[in-house]
Amino acid sequence: MELQTNNTPPLGGRGASGPKLHACLTPALIPLYKVEDYIVVIIDVFRATTSICYGIENGAEAIIPVSKVEECSAYIEKGFDYLLAAERDGEVVSGFDFGNSPFSYTAEKVSGKTVVLTTTNGTHALHLSRRAKKIVIGSFLNLTALCNWLKLQQDNTLLVCSGWKNNFNLEDTLFAGAVVEQLKEHGFRVDDPAIAANDMYSLAKDDLNGYLKKTSHSARLKALGIEKDIEFCLKVDVTTAIPVLDGERLVKLK
Amino acid sequence: MELQTNNTPPLGGRGASGPKLHACLTPALIPLYKVEDYIVVIIDVFRATTSICYGIENGAEAIIPVSKVEECSAYIEKGFDYLLAAERDGEVVSGFDFGNSPFSYTAEKVSGKTVVLTTTNGTHALHLSRRAKKIVIGSFLNLTALCNWLKLQQDNTLLVCSGWKNNFNLEDTLFAGAVVEQLKEHGFRVDDPAIAANDMYSLAKDDLNGYLKKTSHSARLKALGIEKDIEFCLKVDVTTAIPVLDGERLVKLK
Repeated sequence: MELQTNNTPPLGGRGASGPKLHACLTPALIPLYKVEDYIVVIIDVFRATTSICYGIENGAEAIIPVSKVEECSAYIEKGFDYLLAAERDGEVVSGFDFGNSPFSYTAEKVSGKTVVLTTTNGTHALHLSRRAKKIVIGSFLNLTALCNWLKLQQDNTLLVCSGWKNNFNLEDTLFAGAVVEQLKEHGFRVDDPAIAANDMYSLAKDDLNGYLKKTSHSARLKALGIEKDIEFCLKVDVTTAIPVLDGERLVKLK
Repeated sequence: MELQTNNTPPLGGRGASGPKLHACLTPALIPLYKVEDYIVVIIDVFRATTSICYGIENGAEAIIPVSKVEECSAYIEKGFDYLLAAERDGEVVSGFDFGNSPFSYTAEKVSGKTVVLTTTNGTHALHLSRRAKKIVIGSFLNLTALCNWLKLQQDNTLLVCSGWKNNFNLEDTLFAGAVVEQLKEHGFRVDDPAIAANDMYSLAKDDLNGYLKKTSHSARLKALGIEKDIEFCLKVDVTTAIPVLDGERLVKLK
């Protein structure tokens, strides 16, 4: 509306002077935020950030996110002993170690290893957020551990939903809403997208899987045979590790 | 997520082959849509599209939306006998006929007249949508009349929320959700943003005013003394006229 009388983004909620808790519902909106002022949480629930959280929990030394299968391949030529993960149309790319299923990120498979993971939307979000104070990874798996850490930081926090092809999706927004749920009574000032995400979460939280069945791509996911993956991606508080970006690599936050 | 296997936006909901009903939650996302394929509904509930709907209902010959006060002024020099509407910080700009309050768009004031209305977010949304099949204006005032007309068109429909400074806001999203509520059982295929908007609306619909009091700018609106405006903007089904864009002018759809 035309009534805003100054240039600051809408701020409201509890805490007259607390740190900001903002939700950026698609990477297309990242340019609207001064990311240097924020701790950024990257969210890509189906399935990149879930797999990253699980892999780091299970002892992966590092996870390197790339956006294209070709970039992933380049790591073969470099001669590193990395695990390479890429999918096309739900199938592991020929010659690669595994795809994006979180079930591939067990201790048996990844402990002590570095994994190169291909994910288009998540990497796009990461890249646009690169000047943030710190970038961490969130998924339902590490929800409470992440929220507890964010509460301790008491710093401006931007929840970046990777969405799909720059547009909004429900699952990432629900996760943002779940974070707002835990932080909103702890001195953070929320914005409108955070309020909306939190309200959506309030509708969905008792049955995330059931709620998401009505989304646009649930039929497509079913066709790809990854219903088990999706079920796993919606499990809450399975891990405590928080992946943090260190250069180009995601490692366990100490 | 990386699992989408084709380039079409996520589609779901009822109707295997019906027209699309998509919600574009901020103008920043308009480039993601092929607007030529859609009837576009422009939404700017506080207060531009409410005022436009009310003015057209009350017999305004046309309403010309512009984005800057300076463009509005230019109409004085052109010598047209138009009414000029612009505000800065909630005050009518000196020398102008009125501001953006819907209460200025009564029959007594606007019947038979052409009004030049200044609105930044609404005009931005209009401009980005200009290649649409048709552009109409929506607000809670003409909600059901608009939905009845959209049902008859049975055409791809894009609900464009003007938001604020390219970001999401609650009130426009709620209106989009209200439209989805009326159309979803009539053969339209909805997308994720439309589902989300509809779910938010389901939480808010029994007390839109109460729900919106928690938004970021409600305190600022109160300070501007326009609570009565806001109350009016949330009245449902007060008018039946549908403003439609004809060239640069919004006129009554015949």
